[in-house]
Amino acid sequence: MSLPEPIAAIMVEPLVRAALLEDLGRAGDITSAATIPASILLDGVIAARESGVVAGTDAAALAFRLLDPGISVAVEKPDGSRVSPGDIVIRLKGPARAVLSAERVALNLLCHLSGVATATAALVEAARPFPVRIICTRKTTPGLRLLEKHAVRAGGGSNHRFGLDDAVLIKDNHVALAGGIRNAIARSRHAAGPLVKIEVEVDTLAQLAEALETGVDAVLLDNMTPEQMREAVRMVNGRALVEASGRIRLENVNAVAATGVDLISAGWITHSAPALDLGLDVTSSGQF
Amino acid sequence: MSLPEPIAAIMVEPLVRAALLEDLGRAGDITSAATIPASILLDGVIAARESGVVAGTDAAALAFRLLDPGISVAVEKPDGSRVSPGDIVIRLKGPARAVLSAERVALNLLCHLSGVATATAALVEAARPFPVRIICTRKTTPGLRLLEKHAVRAGGGSNHRFGLDDAVLIKDNHVALAGGIRNAIARSRHAAGPLVKIEVEVDTLAQLAEALETGVDAVLLDNMTPEQMREAVRMVNGRALVEASGRIRLENVNAVAATGVDLISAGWITHSAPALDLGLDVTSSGQF
Amino acid sequence: MSLPEPIAAIMVEPLVRAALLEDLGRAGDITSAATIPASILLDGVIAARESGVVAGTDAAALAFRLLDPGISVAVEKPDGSRVSPGDIVIRLKGPARAVLSAERVALNLLCHLSGVATATAALVEAARPFPVRIICTRKTTPGLRLLEKHAVRAGGGSNHRFGLDDAVLIKDNHVALAGGIRNAIARSRHAAGPLVKIEVEVDTLAQLAEALETGVDAVLLDNMTPEQMREAVRMVNGRALVEASGRIRLENVNAVAATGVDLISAGWITHSAPALDLGLDVTSSGQF
Amino acid sequence: MSLPEPIAAIMVEPLVRAALLEDLGRAGDITSAATIPASILLDGVIAARESGVVAGTDAAALAFRLLDPGISVAVEKPDGSRVSPGDIVIRLKGPARAVLSAERVALNLLCHLSGVATATAALVEAARPFPVRIICTRKTTPGLRLLEKHAVRAGGGSNHRFGLDDAVLIKDNHVALAGGIRNAIARSRHAAGPLVKIEVEVDTLAQLAEALETGVDAVLLDNMTPEQMREAVRMVNGRALVEASGRIRLENVNAVAATGVDLISAGWITHSAPALDLGLDVTSSGQF
Amino acid sequence: MSLPEPIAAIMVEPLVRAALLEDLGRAGDITSAATIPASILLDGVIAARESGVVAGTDAAALAFRLLDPGISVAVEKPDGSRVSPGDIVIRLKGPARAVLSAERVALNLLCHLSGVATATAALVEAARPFPVRIICTRKTTPGLRLLEKHAVRAGGGSNHRFGLDDAVLIKDNHVALAGGIRNAIARSRHAAGPLVKIEVEVDTLAQLAEALETGVDAVLLDNMTPEQMREAVRMVNGRALVEASGRIRLENVNAVAATGVDLISAGWITHSAPALDLGLDVTSSGQF
Amino acid sequence: MSLPEPIAAIMVEPLVRAALLEDLGRAGDITSAATIPASILLDGVIAARESGVVAGTDAAALAFRLLDPGISVAVEKPDGSRVSPGDIVIRLKGPARAVLSAERVALNLLCHLSGVATATAALVEAARPFPVRIICTRKTTPGLRLLEKHAVRAGGGSNHRFGLDDAVLIKDNHVALAGGIRNAIARSRHAAGPLVKIEVEVDTLAQLAEALETGVDAVLLDNMTPEQMREAVRMVNGRALVEASGRIRLENVNAVAATGVDLISAGWITHSAPALDLGLDVTSSGQF
Repeated sequence: MSLPEPIAAIMVEPLVRAALLEDLGRAGDITSAATIPASILLDGVIAARESGVVAGTDAAALAFRLLDPGISVAVEKPDGSRVSPGDIVIRLKGPARAVLSAERVALNLLCHLSGVATATAALVEAARPFPVRIICTRKTTPGLRLLEKHAVRAGGGSNHRFGLDDAVLIKDNHVALAGGIRNAIARSRHAAGPLVKIEVEVDTLAQLAEALETGVDAVLLDNMTPEQMREAVRMVNGRALVEASGRIRLENVNAVAATGVDLISAGWITHSAPALDLGLDVTSSGQF
Repeated sequence: MSLPEPIAAIMVEPLVRAALLEDLGRAGDITSAATIPASILLDGVIAARESGVVAGTDAAALAFRLLDPGISVAVEKPDGSRVSPGDIVIRLKGPARAVLSAERVALNLLCHLSGVATATAALVEAARPFPVRIICTRKTTPGLRLLEKHAVRAGGGSNHRFGLDDAVLIKDNHVALAGGIRNAIARSRHAAGPLVKIEVEVDTLAQLAEALETGVDAVLLDNMTPEQMREAVRMVNGRALVEASGRIRLENVNAVAATGVDLISAGWITHSAPALDLGLDVTSSGQF
Repeated sequence: MSLPEPIAAIMVEPLVRAALLEDLGRAGDITSAATIPASILLDGVIAARESGVVAGTDAAALAFRLLDPGISVAVEKPDGSRVSPGDIVIRLKGPARAVLSAERVALNLLCHLSGVATATAALVEAARPFPVRIICTRKTTPGLRLLEKHAVRAGGGSNHRFGLDDAVLIKDNHVALAGGIRNAIARSRHAAGPLVKIEVEVDTLAQLAEALETGVDAVLLDNMTPEQMREAVRMVNGRALVEASGRIRLENVNAVAATGVDLISAGWITHSAPALDLGLDVTSSGQF
Repeated sequence: MSLPEPIAAIMVEPLVRAALLEDLGRAGDITSAATIPASILLDGVIAARESGVVAGTDAAALAFRLLDPGISVAVEKPDGSRVSPGDIVIRLKGPARAVLSAERVALNLLCHLSGVATATAALVEAARPFPVRIICTRKTTPGLRLLEKHAVRAGGGSNHRFGLDDAVLIKDNHVALAGGIRNAIARSRHAAGPLVKIEVEVDTLAQLAEALETGVDAVLLDNMTPEQMREAVRMVNGRALVEASGRIRLENVNAVAATGVDLISAGWITHSAPALDLGLDVTSSGQF
Repeated sequence: MSLPEPIAAIMVEPLVRAALLEDLGRAGDITSAATIPASILLDGVIAARESGVVAGTDAAALAFRLLDPGISVAVEKPDGSRVSPGDIVIRLKGPARAVLSAERVALNLLCHLSGVATATAALVEAARPFPVRIICTRKTTPGLRLLEKHAVRAGGGSNHRFGLDDAVLIKDNHVALAGGIRNAIARSRHAAGPLVKIEVEVDTLAQLAEALETGVDAVLLDNMTPEQMREAVRMVNGRALVEASGRIRLENVNAVAATGVDLISAGWITHSAPALDLGLDVTSSGQF
Repeated sequence: MSLPEPIAAIMVEPLVRAALLEDLGRAGDITSAATIPASILLDGVIAARESGVVAGTDAAALAFRLLDPGISVAVEKPDGSRVSPGDIVIRLKGPARAVLSAERVALNLLCHLSGVATATAALVEAARPFPVRIICTRKTTPGLRLLEKHAVRAGGGSNHRFGLDDAVLIKDNHVALAGGIRNAIARSRHAAGPLVKIEVEVDTLAQLAEALETGVDAVLLDNMTPEQMREAVRMVNGRALVEASGRIRLENVNAVAATGVDLISAGWITHSAPALDLGLDVTSSGQF
């Protein structure tokens, strides 16, 4: 698996800065300031405490650098790397106070995003050997969409829409309020720019047939059985991307993948993935 | 259980506004704008699809109101309420486009925070009947600390520090770099304001004894066995708050509670709680 | 022509607010405060002083309302309307000072965006009767992309990419650095999400042939002659969208449209459209 | 012509940063990330494609540096320089991806501001040899006032008010609502600080006579004929600055200048100046 | 004395909002939330506890309204009013919790700004009956310049520059680095816009003579004796505004005013004015 | 006295940046740009002009560095240092224009915060030799709480609450609305987190007795006589911190300290401390 591209620092910095300020509050890290002499330097590592796939190393590194540009940070396991307990992900060297002041924010980012990557990777793994792409949804944590979408790619998945504006996705409520699938798609084609793809949710094979007549770019099969999906794939026959959605778990993803769908989307890889356990260990310290 | 206090809108608004803009992107909800006539109104409900404890209703309501002040939102189950599948949490009435444009952000907030509240409530329940407080940590999602801390209270838990600045918490690394517990506490007492409590992490009963001599406000027992905790509680004898920490799960929380500790902290209720499933249903619609 | 959808106020407000503060500076409108008694109300209209197509009425209205919610604003000619000299676009009623303090910002927005819409409409008109879409580019005024894209739609045009992230557009430099068109498209398909369209710029028919083999979604014909365009359209034969680009003006757009291309893009409709002349007239005034 | 002073980076940075984020959106430059290997460096130039006067080089340079401090940028033609087709304005060297990701924003700033400078310079040139200053107005693009005012200076013009707060400018509506010129000026003198100049718009020579009696600092002759202007200059006789305003174009500016007015203001040099055509050329590239 | 104009809410709101958030922190007003039932309403007044001149009532009122739009606020003594102990300045009615949560921020603004107004008024009073204007400087509290400048006007003073950009003020260091007064003024006249006044600091009468030859708009006499000032006023003879500056206190302001200078500036009225004592009294309370 | 810890730059930077932009306005330092050639460098010092205690050196240094990273700044007297007239606090070297452009903001911060530190130090000194801590209140300047709290520490004082959320402080109005002290404290204990201290204001010894029964952490004696305070200290007998509050001045602080209270709070050290006089002197200058 090739590693996902890093995100430009200018895009991540506001979020990491805000996270640091959220933790520092109005008075800063009063514990480190009180207990640790300013002249102490430390060497430390952030290591995995369980197995998984890493994501968020750039954001974590930025947390340390923003708090103190004097902290040097070396990423040993870039985003997308598989790690086992004890694997060193990041090496740190710098003023002890600053390292400890940034620790929690860096780990909060790293553990959460690695959790998303790890969940995605598990789903990707479970779907093998079928040529399907595992994709995420807009069910992300408010404020973290950029980073969670990136973590999904780090886990081997692909990204569905980043927001309400980069593709048309016509859901059941839109269909109902537009007066049918045909109407909804026609209006979307008229309104959307020429580089915007249009996808429509279908709940039945009859709706699928109607959608296909419009030349839609993708269809979302909502909560269909594997048998229905297989039939849908047959009906589509390459004329549109076919996405399976609805209660996809590790247990059933392979069966869904076997139906021949192109895309499988899962909300839980962003909204319910448990954090991956990583921690900071101080390996040595001393005076300047 | 009394309900937690709501959060002042002025504090929550920046976060909800940012979440809406993150989702709207540069072009807004192109699907709803294309498919739904501007004149359509709808009635809808947000209902639980599984059992749990609700949190984040104010934030979710604000998402709808910020997008369009013309949406009326009525919270039926305020934060802290227990819900079962089918229970209506929020009732909505307003322009169909605006309701659907805000839907995802509102649900992302509500499902995530209800997940935190539900996890907390489960831990609180499992610790009964012991007079212990379940508390959260700083292992929160960057940007959401205010709301997650509130969700913990909605689940019946209490809040530990909101950040690095509102209490001194001397951890193992601070102790090591300060040259011992006694030193670390003395420096903290000198530096901290008189209304700031001081807690120290102890890994052994010997460290606990040293800490108690300093008159510290609270001690954190890190990864001790229930037997050690029980002995620690005996040693402390009411002179300080006693917090148990480290790998507390639903399975072992009652045993820990039974040791007599005052506080049990758990990071996973904020960083790894799965989202609670809630969804929006359109109940009726029509022209203005 | 159906009117373009309005933009959600939450998206436009930060920009209009910033524009007001830019004009108010640190001391505010010292002229109106000094010369006009606080108790004076006025009625006024914003009227066209030349012919064109209006855009930006929502933004202009917001400028008045943000400065003083007591100003009532009625839009008589919504975005997309054709106007002639003397046509009333907006009617205003409210405190005289506030109206005059917001006047310049409202007009700066309205005149600029109406200029964009008017230029677009002229190009759309000139391309008739061919079934081609006039589209804009990313050559927009920094900070105003959302509004200028909207103004293009108000003028009857369509929108190309809103930014670097909502479609892949492989230009000559990308092709060169990727080692050829085939390579560039293959890498893009691998990296991009399934709902992202891929377009590639081609300078020759040989490049076009190479691009078509990859199944790309759209091709951009850069600075080709009408004859080359016609041949390109023949070669593509409906397998991809065909965009003509490069020095498209009112004089040559019809000839380009006649070649059968699907899309014609023009940077100047956003970066060089002259402002449309509209002005505020006070129609009556008096004491509260 | 001496070159205008550069603007402090701290003032320009927020605007350039926002422009980059507007273009990068939520997912960044997906084309460059997909197609160009991270290890490729390039050398490039930004060159003029038509003749004009350059402005905005500092802002353009900042766009590259903010996106990647590893890009080195050398300005060859500082703001205020005259350029001909082919002249190199900026030289660039750095990571290929980052250069291409920042290209559009840098050019959008540079081309727009150079357009303003070029339009101003044309007006300045046309007004020769009369000792008149060409000045801009508040008819600027929302958000860009600072940069457009600077571009006017780069083109050899001077700046009128930067906003509503740095001088009093009493227009016809203020006069009407204040109950006459004398009243309006008296109130302004009372309210304004001692370092604030006061200018009043006059539509007739009778109004001018009234204004002069008050000792006003400047008078704005609105839409007068050259003959009226000449008479006005004679009446003023050095007691106040005389500004000519209203439909000043390249065609008539010399005639207006010849009347002896001190200042000629023109809104179109900021609101309707076409962009100056400049482009980026990659001159070489290779591996790190 | 006529009252100063209010400041547009759009200009004051960001500052008041930030002040509220600074005080609310991450958890809000935990005391009021804990101790006061949500259903309690109160009536209260903000009253003077010492004599002085009031300023900041609009900002204080906004603090209450921003925290809870349900609080009704009536300003009894608008900015510029003289108050004696016991005088009611603002009447409040609304939810008890919200009123108490906003109390401190409202009072911090009101007491500080009234302190500035009171100090200014004392200086204005002491300078009577001479026709001199008391003006402030740029020695203001970071972030509060707008409000402090307004408070100076509320106290009967006038405003000098609002910042580095709205007038040229050539100080001793500028003179030295420019190579003399004549040079400095000539360069300023060339660079500054035509509506910008130019003032120069002079330390001796010889410098004053040099400055007057240049036709400067204003001269600042720095730390001169009353005799020197009197001579300076005689030399200037109405050709420029004359400002006296340097260690002006209540004790010596009348002697300075008697010299015939036009302006007397004092930094301490903004940077060292003690707060005016005002307090909130709850007058009644009850259930909704 | 040990020096107070510096504040992390990430926390101070937004405030200093905003202060610079407030002073630079829209056009920047037009005087320095006009009068001083870009190539001039200067050496300068910021020196004390009166005796006191310094605070704010980090913020002042940041003002210079943010405006131009090419200015080198060396702090000779760190926060908490006592200075006499002529003592050099900061040494500067860099481009003359940039140094003069940042001068006022740097001095405004430094003089104000040194004023707070000096006032605090005077109170601390006057309270000797009693083992009491001088503490500040929430009566701070909006926007500057972080820095003023730090200045109090620089002056030898300690910090009370940083905001409404980091400790419970039950005042008279809370007591009244909660139905008594006992009730108010019980509700607070239930609602507050376990690491939050609770303090209650008492006006009489009877209230004190009631408060002590609840095991409150601290009591605030409001406007008591020294005799009452002495009796209160006797009653408390070490069971809670005792804070004296209300009209504490240099004249009476020793008498209050002698009563045995633990804490003495004074609002005026933040809201009414006069600025300490410090100024910038250019010591040499020359071409690059």
